[in-house]
Amino acid sequence: MSALDGAAPADAVTIFAIDGLPEIRPGDDLAAVLGDVLAGRVIEGDILVVTSKVVSKAEGRLIHAADREDAITAETRRLVASRRHSGGTTRIVETHVGLVMAAAGVDASNVPEGMIALLPVDPDASARALATALRERLGVALGVILSDTFGRPWRDGQTDVAIGAAGLMVVDDLRGSTDAQGRTLEVTVPAIADELAGAADLVKGKAGGRPVAVVRGLGRYVTGVDAPGARRLVRAAELDMFRLGSDEADRAGYERGYADGVAGRASELAGPPAP
Amino acid sequence: MSALDGAAPADAVTIFAIDGLPEIRPGDDLAAVLGDVLAGRVIEGDILVVTSKVVSKAEGRLIHAADREDAITAETRRLVASRRHSGGTTRIVETHVGLVMAAAGVDASNVPEGMIALLPVDPDASARALATALRERLGVALGVILSDTFGRPWRDGQTDVAIGAAGLMVVDDLRGSTDAQGRTLEVTVPAIADELAGAADLVKGKAGGRPVAVVRGLGRYVTGVDAPGARRLVRAAELDMFRLGSDEADRAGYERGYADGVAGRASELAGPPAP
Repeated sequence: MSALDGAAPADAVTIFAIDGLPEIRPGDDLAAVLGDVLAGRVIEGDILVVTSKVVSKAEGRLIHAADREDAITAETRRLVASRRHSGGTTRIVETHVGLVMAAAGVDASNVPEGMIALLPVDPDASARALATALRERLGVALGVILSDTFGRPWRDGQTDVAIGAAGLMVVDDLRGSTDAQGRTLEVTVPAIADELAGAADLVKGKAGGRPVAVVRGLGRYVTGVDAPGARRLVRAAELDMFRLGSDEADRAGYERGYADGVAGRASELAGPPAP
Repeated sequence: MSALDGAAPADAVTIFAIDGLPEIRPGDDLAAVLGDVLAGRVIEGDILVVTSKVVSKAEGRLIHAADREDAITAETRRLVASRRHSGGTTRIVETHVGLVMAAAGVDASNVPEGMIALLPVDPDASARALATALRERLGVALGVILSDTFGRPWRDGQTDVAIGAAGLMVVDDLRGSTDAQGRTLEVTVPAIADELAGAADLVKGKAGGRPVAVVRGLGRYVTGVDAPGARRLVRAAELDMFRLGSDEADRAGYERGYADGVAGRASELAGPPAP
């Protein structure tokens, strides 16, 4: 056995942030800017994790901060839950691409004073365009993830997840494969793209100066650019046990129950949703 | 400017799985076994992510598979949601340490045939004992995370999160710091330990042969072993907008509303929970 010196093994995954990216402004060709910065720094099978905010900026998705509440409404397909607090009302909504998140992702950090940013209209399409252009420019097969920061039910703090993806397997469907005991893994579908987005957040940070990270060593997940995007990670509301906030569901049930009680109708308890 | 050759920068974060860990059995001294395997392989500031299953095994938290449903009940502090399906009933519960998860973490993968594993009784205490013993044995300050695989509302697939932690900052509380524009980050508290657990899952995999990973290059998050553990990541149910499944909340509201309607009581709609 050779002496061990604490060196990481050759098959280690490495993650690093990209320095030197200029401030992105509306109308910038993000793929061209990124191509310049990444030339000579990426290799076959790398996965880029790009903070969605810089894509929003390049795509001109900036509006005046005064229009925030109307913008959230416009970005909303369905209100999931809301809560009033001293600073206003927090809305958890489902966006038009199916993301369930606070304020539809409308956010003021790392944008010019007085402005706020909306999410890219179609994050998977944005990721696909970036992946296609960067592959052509740099001559290597890269995966691209657009990340954003999400709160979660039941757990404090936020993690970054994939809101857009192209050129990689967003899930690793292990159903039917076996564990070390030869037992079938029945429900195991790791959300690779979300774990990658969270891992990249550890090196990018939130201050905004380093919105792009490279994950190297997971080329086995890199695919053609037309593989399913982050939309694959969205669960349909009707299949979700938490499709509505607890207060909202309670209120809906109460109103139905009250009407039934007054009318003397037989109690029709809510059943499980259609499968 | 020097020529770029695609090499990762010196400050890259590296993540690698540890090979050579023997199968862990009830009564094994996990810290001693890990200490043997890790000697010469870890350096100051490394963070170990240990699949909680191996801790469960060492702690003897294995029971016969036939006792599964009773075990889930015993591990449950509060039923959050349940759903019947062709294979039985899935219960999302809050465990005695506040984790909200399917089946209270009771799981059959990577344990001997006919057996199932329960989570460690106190994952933060297990992590603290491991971190303390490994620091003493190896002479370097390490962080330790116990990870497990969680499903999520609204998103398909699972990610690994931290159910126990010691010797590291589990969150990076950025509230009050500023972004690149000098604007205050008001609600930004990255769940570092969860992002680390997910990142480690990318190299460990689910087959069970490599339940331990090392994350190197984030020593800035390593602390004394008495820093708050993963319990810090648990949000109290009464503060959670999704403390109860949508069907369960609807049913509770309906029953209350029906009774009020029959009795002719004034409609008392559910309000927000106490802050």
